[in-house]
Amino acid sequence: MVIDKYAPIGVFDSGVGGLTVVREIMRNLPNERIVYFGDTARVPYGSKSKNTVLRYSRQIVRFLQTKQVKAIVVACNTASALALDEIETEFDIPIIGVVKPGAHVATKTTVKKRIGVIATESTIQSNLYPTLIRKEAPDITVFGKACPLFVPLVEEGWTKDPITYEVARRYLAGLLEKDIDTLIMGCTHYPLLRSLLREVVGEKITLVNPAYETSQALKRLLRELELENPQPYWEKQESNDEKYRFFSSDGVERFNAFANSVLPYETKSTTLVQIDEF
Amino acid sequence: MVIDKYAPIGVFDSGVGGLTVVREIMRNLPNERIVYFGDTARVPYGSKSKNTVLRYSRQIVRFLQTKQVKAIVVACNTASALALDEIETEFDIPIIGVVKPGAHVATKTTVKKRIGVIATESTIQSNLYPTLIRKEAPDITVFGKACPLFVPLVEEGWTKDPITYEVARRYLAGLLEKDIDTLIMGCTHYPLLRSLLREVVGEKITLVNPAYETSQALKRLLRELELENPQPYWEKQESNDEKYRFFSSDGVERFNAFANSVLPYETKSTTLVQIDEF
Repeated sequence: MVIDKYAPIGVFDSGVGGLTVVREIMRNLPNERIVYFGDTARVPYGSKSKNTVLRYSRQIVRFLQTKQVKAIVVACNTASALALDEIETEFDIPIIGVVKPGAHVATKTTVKKRIGVIATESTIQSNLYPTLIRKEAPDITVFGKACPLFVPLVEEGWTKDPITYEVARRYLAGLLEKDIDTLIMGCTHYPLLRSLLREVVGEKITLVNPAYETSQALKRLLRELELENPQPYWEKQESNDEKYRFFSSDGVERFNAFANSVLPYETKSTTLVQIDEF
Repeated sequence: MVIDKYAPIGVFDSGVGGLTVVREIMRNLPNERIVYFGDTARVPYGSKSKNTVLRYSRQIVRFLQTKQVKAIVVACNTASALALDEIETEFDIPIIGVVKPGAHVATKTTVKKRIGVIATESTIQSNLYPTLIRKEAPDITVFGKACPLFVPLVEEGWTKDPITYEVARRYLAGLLEKDIDTLIMGCTHYPLLRSLLREVVGEKITLVNPAYETSQALKRLLRELELENPQPYWEKQESNDEKYRFFSSDGVERFNAFANSVLPYETKSTTLVQIDEF
């Protein structure tokens, strides 16, 4: 394993949703360089099987290794739920996902010991959030709900729309009846629905954003491994386009457009990758 | 080219939507055997680029050729729009898509010379429906509208739901203002929304279902090439499971469940295919 503190962090997702994790890493670890890969040619993962998501994740890790990354963040709940265990042991590089940090914080947050999780079909079926939470605190009850329309609604741009509100109301009605006090937004697209979800669930439920928690977990991991980039970002000569590099397996213009609606600066330089060759 | 009249028809789609075409072939060409491939590991195609859809389509044609099919139906509007021209010339086997038959019938149907097309993002952007229609009848005006939420709404099972009605009303409002008298359901999932679309557009607009038109075009093609299966279906010894074979690149249980909601008989025997190896 090459240990180069100046090397970038590799971040990947099934598409553009993982950019909400990138945004948190940019904010909270401003010294770090980032290489992002979005698998837009095969998006979404949320309705696909473990074997398929695992195969795709392996290809992406191999691709990121060609970019000499020092650590990898699986910025996709589905891939974290279905593939993280395997790729963690198969590859000789530190890898973290978004599920564990989100589950951990929810466990610390809930007072009523009742947590809701909204996510894709595959993440819910994997049962990983409940499993991790109960491992930490067996007295907590977890209620899951798959919300397959949220991702296409976000990608349609209807993040503050009455239709989306109605869909959310219907998806969440069952969870609200369970008297939860904490709700995990278990898909990287969902934080983009935060204000609408807030309206639906009211003020008394804490919304957990695994993207933020993951950036904190990454910070701790880099510190532990002594892999933090020691060069403060304000001393750097490189531009944002050198510091942050974006790759996708399809539709780089679409990718750029979405990226620019999520990230704090304008990116124009996404590069196309034939990911099934890795 | 092997010419075997008893050989099956190959049919493919990005996922399960093409089963509406299979259903029409079963009804209208009951003598024919079918091999269906649904690319559920990479679904949907509707938001992906021409290059990617072309690469995927080539792999699928190569797979279907291993099943000794005598002709291929591209039962996916996006793949028909983005890949048909190329694969038609590259492969030595008769191939038809769903766009041309749908466009042709709409041209014959419209009296006002004003046609609407609803489809995926990529199909609309390809401009193929307007191009084909104007080639036949330059005096016809075509209005397109991408409806990216329809596929996930159908897959959620909300085909008769007030939310879907509201989404449809919003998507179609602009087209209805254009005084169209014919509307092409330019995505294989959309016929499953037929009764809801009928409510939204009223009785005066003709809904064109390219799936039905494609089965008729296939019938003419087989007759022309003298490739019709001469053995009447009532004389056959084989069961439906032998006559109709289903393959998908992921989630065979999910595939079966959807297939059984669309097809006129129960199928249990979908086989998993690693499609990127073809």
